[in-house]
Amino acid sequence: MIPDDEFIQTKNVPGPTKEEVRCLVMCKANISSQDTVVDVGCGSGGLTLESAQRALNVIAFDKNPEAIDLTRKNLEKHGLTSKVQLLEGDALQVLEGINSFDVILVGGSSGDLPLIIKQGYEKLKENGRIVITSILLETRVEAVNAIKNIGLVPDVIEVTIAKGKITERGTMMMGRNPITIISAVKV
Amino acid sequence: MIPDDEFIQTKNVPGPTKEEVRCLVMCKANISSQDTVVDVGCGSGGLTLESAQRALNVIAFDKNPEAIDLTRKNLEKHGLTSKVQLLEGDALQVLEGINSFDVILVGGSSGDLPLIIKQGYEKLKENGRIVITSILLETRVEAVNAIKNIGLVPDVIEVTIAKGKITERGTMMMGRNPITIISAVKV
Amino acid sequence: MIPDDEFIQTKNVPGPTKEEVRCLVMCKANISSQDTVVDVGCGSGGLTLESAQRALNVIAFDKNPEAIDLTRKNLEKHGLTSKVQLLEGDALQVLEGINSFDVILVGGSSGDLPLIIKQGYEKLKENGRIVITSILLETRVEAVNAIKNIGLVPDVIEVTIAKGKITERGTMMMGRNPITIISAVKV
Amino acid sequence: MIPDDEFIQTKNVPGPTKEEVRCLVMCKANISSQDTVVDVGCGSGGLTLESAQRALNVIAFDKNPEAIDLTRKNLEKHGLTSKVQLLEGDALQVLEGINSFDVILVGGSSGDLPLIIKQGYEKLKENGRIVITSILLETRVEAVNAIKNIGLVPDVIEVTIAKGKITERGTMMMGRNPITIISAVKV
Repeated sequence: MIPDDEFIQTKNVPGPTKEEVRCLVMCKANISSQDTVVDVGCGSGGLTLESAQRALNVIAFDKNPEAIDLTRKNLEKHGLTSKVQLLEGDALQVLEGINSFDVILVGGSSGDLPLIIKQGYEKLKENGRIVITSILLETRVEAVNAIKNIGLVPDVIEVTIAKGKITERGTMMMGRNPITIISAVKV
Repeated sequence: MIPDDEFIQTKNVPGPTKEEVRCLVMCKANISSQDTVVDVGCGSGGLTLESAQRALNVIAFDKNPEAIDLTRKNLEKHGLTSKVQLLEGDALQVLEGINSFDVILVGGSSGDLPLIIKQGYEKLKENGRIVITSILLETRVEAVNAIKNIGLVPDVIEVTIAKGKITERGTMMMGRNPITIISAVKV
Repeated sequence: MIPDDEFIQTKNVPGPTKEEVRCLVMCKANISSQDTVVDVGCGSGGLTLESAQRALNVIAFDKNPEAIDLTRKNLEKHGLTSKVQLLEGDALQVLEGINSFDVILVGGSSGDLPLIIKQGYEKLKENGRIVITSILLETRVEAVNAIKNIGLVPDVIEVTIAKGKITERGTMMMGRNPITIISAVKV
Repeated sequence: MIPDDEFIQTKNVPGPTKEEVRCLVMCKANISSQDTVVDVGCGSGGLTLESAQRALNVIAFDKNPEAIDLTRKNLEKHGLTSKVQLLEGDALQVLEGINSFDVILVGGSSGDLPLIIKQGYEKLKENGRIVITSILLETRVEAVNAIKNIGLVPDVIEVTIAKGKITERGTMMMGRNPITIISAVKV
């Protein structure tokens, strides 16, 4: 995985998604070198870059132009621009214009999460994967319900990571915000 | 419990121990109104104040004069000074000069944790409680081993709390550092 | 706190709520010796017994007669029957017949959680506390929303406890199910 | 990742390492198709199989013949036997007879953890990765200290996963035992 501190960061864009969470999302997404990945709400580009290292191509979008700019800079820093199409805009509108894909990652939601999941699922190929990361109590439930409404049984994991900080006194465990990963495979 | 934000805080002194951790330490300490409590490494006074609300009297010490000063200010703010004796100094030396007590809380260790537990235990009354809070991987094991060396079976809980932050978008769960509470009752 | 293994348990009734969770619920409930406590969905009686040790009196109910029976046995075992009124029945109906109280604990919900919170809140005295424990993703959000609808800001903590099992090889940390505690004080 | 329930399990052998933990270990191990991986204490074969899917070849051992047998059955079930050499025996003795390798995974320790790390590290190629998974309070510290003694700064993460169980009433979060992953890259 790309270390957290090798991402360029800015004040106004959240992320990048921490290394261990990116790792778990990538496992659930199970991206192959023939896959097209859609990254909804790319933020700092954490999941965009990891996807670009594994997929045939990636379409990433965010409604925040600063996020698009930051993701571009991170892609450039890691030499991954060629595989990624970056689009600024509203998730539902951008999804409208995209054909089918193998994986859809949903990070940023802006209140449209159920619709994004529904619309994203329709364009997902058979055996395609949908992976949602959620930091709000409310969006966890929205994601679970949206997956159930599609007729699938969601895989739900809540992940709490503490990272050891090596100090002179010993190994201090620093807590991170818990994150919930909801996923499903299209059958 | 006293809310976290009703403690005066300063840059150079850690704490106060968060409300939920104070709550769990108080449950393990099981302080009655007839008890004398010793608080080793009082820091900002979080556990000192909670103990003072429940015990007959409290002896709190810290090697850091700023911690003593801060604990005094917090005791004054909450009208709890009369029950508490504050001592600046090395834990082992201060313990030397104290008679028996019902509860010993050990928060700050400074490398002497096993000796503090051993010496504290000797002065603990029958059915007395020893409660250690640890934020380092290493001191957790030191505390477990020291309790075992006394001939007791330690109660060990690792506590991870995330606190909800109510935002316009929803309830964001903010992670805290995990803490381990090791305790035992003298038989 | 009453140790977990000092509760009589049966196969068909969940609980008792683990010691550390009972401890945190009691801290949030802040029960005084003059308080009347209502315990909705008493299950094995974990919170009923803890409340009875602190309150003036407790009204506990559950729609499951086995739960009522088990709570009664646990109250008898710990000599706490005199303070507790046990009622079998639907939460909303039983609440209907109760006058005001100082604390309401809501554990079992059966789909009526928002209404129970609303109705319970109306009968809560000024400065009264409402404390909800939730093990389902969905009821956490229901509780948060119901508290917001009342016009209060909920206190939300998610608690993950691992308990050390002392073995010959070392201290094995055994995970527990995470639980969310949502609470508020009536103003 | 291979789903947890696609592993054959037996009563006397622990594991398999849960999917999400295998995922994180694989990320830290960063196995390429040219790598030789050593798996110390293979248990049910969880990490052996994941390594076999990614590496050039894998050497797995366990002192428990039942573990060797079970790992063999799991390799056969998933068509991965050809890449894996299975050895029954004491970790230190088996390590003695192996040449250099790119990755060493240490799961089972049997009290020799510091020596296994030291000896394993010596045989690790430059840029090789060592990844230790620990479920005991004590072995976490042993692993951290052993890595420090080698002259490296360990990466330490404590991982707590709760898995959602979809029920009629809602999504019940089922806790797992926390696990600590300690890793380092040879420089």
